[in-house]
Amino acid sequence: MLPTKKIPANVVPRLSRYYRALYEHTQLPWISSSVLSEYTGFTAAQIRKDLGYFGQFGSPGKGYNVEELKKSIRQILGLDRTWNAAVIGVGNLGTALMGYRGFKDQGFNIVAAFDSDPRKTGSTIKGVKIFSLDSMPAVVKEKSIQIAILTVPGSVAQQTAETACKAGIKSILNFAPVHLRLPDSVKVRHIDMSIEIERLSFLITTGDSGR
Amino acid sequence: MLPTKKIPANVVPRLSRYYRALYEHTQLPWISSSVLSEYTGFTAAQIRKDLGYFGQFGSPGKGYNVEELKKSIRQILGLDRTWNAAVIGVGNLGTALMGYRGFKDQGFNIVAAFDSDPRKTGSTIKGVKIFSLDSMPAVVKEKSIQIAILTVPGSVAQQTAETACKAGIKSILNFAPVHLRLPDSVKVRHIDMSIEIERLSFLITTGDSGR
Repeated sequence: MLPTKKIPANVVPRLSRYYRALYEHTQLPWISSSVLSEYTGFTAAQIRKDLGYFGQFGSPGKGYNVEELKKSIRQILGLDRTWNAAVIGVGNLGTALMGYRGFKDQGFNIVAAFDSDPRKTGSTIKGVKIFSLDSMPAVVKEKSIQIAILTVPGSVAQQTAETACKAGIKSILNFAPVHLRLPDSVKVRHIDMSIEIERLSFLITTGDSGR
Repeated sequence: MLPTKKIPANVVPRLSRYYRALYEHTQLPWISSSVLSEYTGFTAAQIRKDLGYFGQFGSPGKGYNVEELKKSIRQILGLDRTWNAAVIGVGNLGTALMGYRGFKDQGFNIVAAFDSDPRKTGSTIKGVKIFSLDSMPAVVKEKSIQIAILTVPGSVAQQTAETACKAGIKSILNFAPVHLRLPDSVKVRHIDMSIEIERLSFLITTGDSGR
């Protein structure tokens, strides 16, 4: 069942969490919002509201049909297909992500890596071949790469992202600690690990519960 | 200048971004909200609202005093001190984080690592010694470790987090793709890389701008 209303962007990460919980924990054909609440930490009310976007397929007394819910969320998140991704920047983090099972499990295949260091290009790490930045246009096209995972140092991130866009990349998962200024047509998600640890130090400093 | 009002949790990551932009880009003593907007991607109106929590220290025609603003944000985020952190789980990701400069630059020092694999314990990676899980209570105490960076597989994350809490850890940066069920007194921030890449595939699938 596809959603009956447009799903707001802030609901999307919760759908990912619901999906993961359904995937990992459910052996039964039905699940209630309160059980899903236990597995995810979101309130049952929040869950009912979010799943309300999919129309009425909760059933009183039974809860949600697990298979139907999984299928719907997969479609919404684009997980019912596979995506080809490339790591740009083969340092420690890039290398770790090249072997990160969580990506593969959700249909994200890392099919190439790029680095500016000629000592790295040509070699293969975890089954993924490393190419030069110059060869990006050809490799992106040949391997139908849709997503770039940017793990270069902050000082060269903007420039490298521009190179990737010129090579045909339309979406970037950015691990570099800088705000990328790119055309609106390029989708960007930013994972800033320092910011998350700073949120933690804020919570410790203020004694805030973090909710 | 300390904030005149309680700062909501959702403002905190933006403060981190403002701080980073001030730190990296400003050579001048004053900065306007519109210039800060350019460096961070947040609107000038949002920036003025967020910095309004610090009271009135914007100056008409000049903008914000950069040094004063940096100092205030450092205090709020708890970056005016250093924190001792430990990596739990020395796999690819754990190893990458042990060398992640972004943490050190903001005052987060990784002073120990823990792993259940006896072939790893006793060795040193990137200057950080690896200890067994059993030795956690003693090491946490001796090295005054306040933050655990959890990079174990999802299947053992809950159990390992409980071990860390028993050892005296009160705050966890969780990279494992599971919701941790821990006492309210323990602060937890969750970085789920799969969820971020799923947000990206949602944006590509729907053609949403991602705002």
